[in-house]
Amino acid sequence: MYVTLVHVHVVADRVDDFMKATKVNHEHSVQEPGCLRFDVLRDPDDGTRFILYEAYKTPEDAAAHKQTRHYELWRDTVANWMAQPRRGEPMLGVCPNHCKTDE
Amino acid sequence: MYVTLVHVHVVADRVDDFMKATKVNHEHSVQEPGCLRFDVLRDPDDGTRFILYEAYKTPEDAAAHKQTRHYELWRDTVANWMAQPRRGEPMLGVCPNHCKTDE
Repeated sequence: MYVTLVHVHVVADRVDDFMKATKVNHEHSVQEPGCLRFDVLRDPDDGTRFILYEAYKTPEDAAAHKQTRHYELWRDTVANWMAQPRRGEPMLGVCPNHCKTDE
Repeated sequence: MYVTLVHVHVVADRVDDFMKATKVNHEHSVQEPGCLRFDVLRDPDDGTRFILYEAYKTPEDAAAHKQTRHYELWRDTVANWMAQPRRGEPMLGVCPNHCKTDE
């Protein structure tokens, strides 16, 4: 499982617009065949901060996401709403992929 | 969806032990009725750093996790293997819980 945590900081007066655009992106992304999770999380202490938790079966599946129409639409839609540049944090899934305790 | 990202930094010579204990915790945790995700992630650039991505249906479900025998066993097992104290980062799920785009 190939995960990216995308840390997003949105300008305050565009949070509602950002959430609407990101929900559309979520709905399409979870239908990608290689997508395992596409969770949208909001900071309970600062509603302008979000994490997109994106998990794919393979690195190729993750890369393919960025070629989709819905990703490109989201990227262009939210471009001017960022309070600072997004930061992608790559992580490798240990579980649930490889959970043999007798390894 | 009530999420906690648990940031973990393990002492180098206990990483294998930590992964084994955490896989056992994962296997039990995903069977909890309120558990939606219990992903174990490893930093590809620093194999001593992990994130546990724990998502529960309700705050009560998340709290109940910490009352389970498997959590207590994991907590006590890994206690001396931390390079620094664990940090729990709470987040609220926007999607997939509440994804009506016509809201």
